[in-house]
Amino acid sequence: MGLPVRFARFVHAAGVSFGVVEGDGASGLTVAEINSLPFEEVRFTGQRWALPDVRLLAPIFSSKVIGVGRNYAEHAAELGNEVPKEPLIFIKPSTSVIGPNDAIRIPPVTQQVEEEAELAVVIGATGARRVDRAGAQKAIFGYTCANDVTARDLQRKDPQWTRAKGFDSFCPLGPWIETQLDVSDLEIRCEVGRAPDAMEVRQIGRTKDMVFDIPGLVSYVSHVMTLLPGDVILTGTPAGVSQIVPGDTVSVSVQGIGELRNTVVALD
Amino acid sequence: MGLPVRFARFVHAAGVSFGVVEGDGASGLTVAEINSLPFEEVRFTGQRWALPDVRLLAPIFSSKVIGVGRNYAEHAAELGNEVPKEPLIFIKPSTSVIGPNDAIRIPPVTQQVEEEAELAVVIGATGARRVDRAGAQKAIFGYTCANDVTARDLQRKDPQWTRAKGFDSFCPLGPWIETQLDVSDLEIRCEVGRAPDAMEVRQIGRTKDMVFDIPGLVSYVSHVMTLLPGDVILTGTPAGVSQIVPGDTVSVSVQGIGELRNTVVALD
Repeated sequence: MGLPVRFARFVHAAGVSFGVVEGDGASGLTVAEINSLPFEEVRFTGQRWALPDVRLLAPIFSSKVIGVGRNYAEHAAELGNEVPKEPLIFIKPSTSVIGPNDAIRIPPVTQQVEEEAELAVVIGATGARRVDRAGAQKAIFGYTCANDVTARDLQRKDPQWTRAKGFDSFCPLGPWIETQLDVSDLEIRCEVGRAPDAMEVRQIGRTKDMVFDIPGLVSYVSHVMTLLPGDVILTGTPAGVSQIVPGDTVSVSVQGIGELRNTVVALD
Repeated sequence: MGLPVRFARFVHAAGVSFGVVEGDGASGLTVAEINSLPFEEVRFTGQRWALPDVRLLAPIFSSKVIGVGRNYAEHAAELGNEVPKEPLIFIKPSTSVIGPNDAIRIPPVTQQVEEEAELAVVIGATGARRVDRAGAQKAIFGYTCANDVTARDLQRKDPQWTRAKGFDSFCPLGPWIETQLDVSDLEIRCEVGRAPDAMEVRQIGRTKDMVFDIPGLVSYVSHVMTLLPGDVILTGTPAGVSQIVPGDTVSVSVQGIGELRNTVVALD
């Protein structure tokens, strides 16, 4: 067994635990429970489950989720925007976070909700305050998939994006945190479908096309606000964003990490 | 002794506690330690300090602080803005919160930081999700003073206000939470000076002049994001905002609550 690389948080019959995801497609995945936080020295309890026997949650608690707007030139263009000169940051509240297979709940106040598939950075045990690029790299614990769900009509209407991007359930994260990964050129993909077996590709992009790269983003944000362990930075979405509606299944996948699937329902 | 009405969080020789502030100007204020959260049924430990012998902290932990922009017509006008048709909300990260007498730290990236004196609403034990005006009223635990410190030059420059309003130390809260208060028509005042005994008045307003009133704001925000116990909503600033610079003392006071003082320093 190599170094643990994938950390998940999950519900099992006896409660909620963090664990290390092991195995591959051929042998099936298992999750080995730990009684430490992922950031810490890992202590295994000896308990282990087959992955289909547990329910994955968002892989980490975050005191805040920072989003980055217009960080892929083609996506900025498709919404009629220029590429910004500095990272364009916004905050999604921690109450917007949901986990794999949870439902994205569309409130009645919006008629146009869109998915935004993204690579998410998870900050590690040291946190980060006013770090340079090298310090940013050290502050990163790992990466997961994110969906920066956005009510596009409200984003156009409101002067600030807080409402459009801040609704409960508008920040799916998961399926786990991958800690050993070169993220300089990975495919990001979003598929949407009326059924899990009838998905169509909506977004395809590559992380190499980010306007501001990951060490630059982490450094920039850390000069504004202290990043605490578990805080998450969403690194922007590539082109192709499209409407999602109740009944859809939405899949975000990042090469080398895995797939984050969510359903979509209407809120009364 | 009447019902406890003022809850503080404070540092004393043996640690950090919540407590009930008692007394008046004549007899001097004391703080009686409790070993419950302010939201819960209050349990006194019997320990008590004179207020000058402890150091007050921001009175509550908040998972998020929601700000409201342009909620006084005169302030909207002084910055050249229209009054919005719906509450204009934004998020200040929890890392921006500081307590009474802490220093507001001005980072080198801004040349124009301004104070914004505000009444802050603290959400109680039940939280609030999609509540109406009556439910909003029930969800409110109490009120405190806030300073929605803003880098005005960055607010003008950035498409989103996250950076301008999100720096560490840009959200002083305190001195305590007042739970028994009719907030429909209270004076909000800000004074700034080069010395604590040479203060000049910068802002004076009255809460009756809010564009959207407090039950309306809480209800609105709760339809976007679940409000958790301890979450704070800043209700907007009246006219008169002005630049604050290193060496200043800034005082925010709300009638019936008390005074929140902070110093201003430059960050290298």
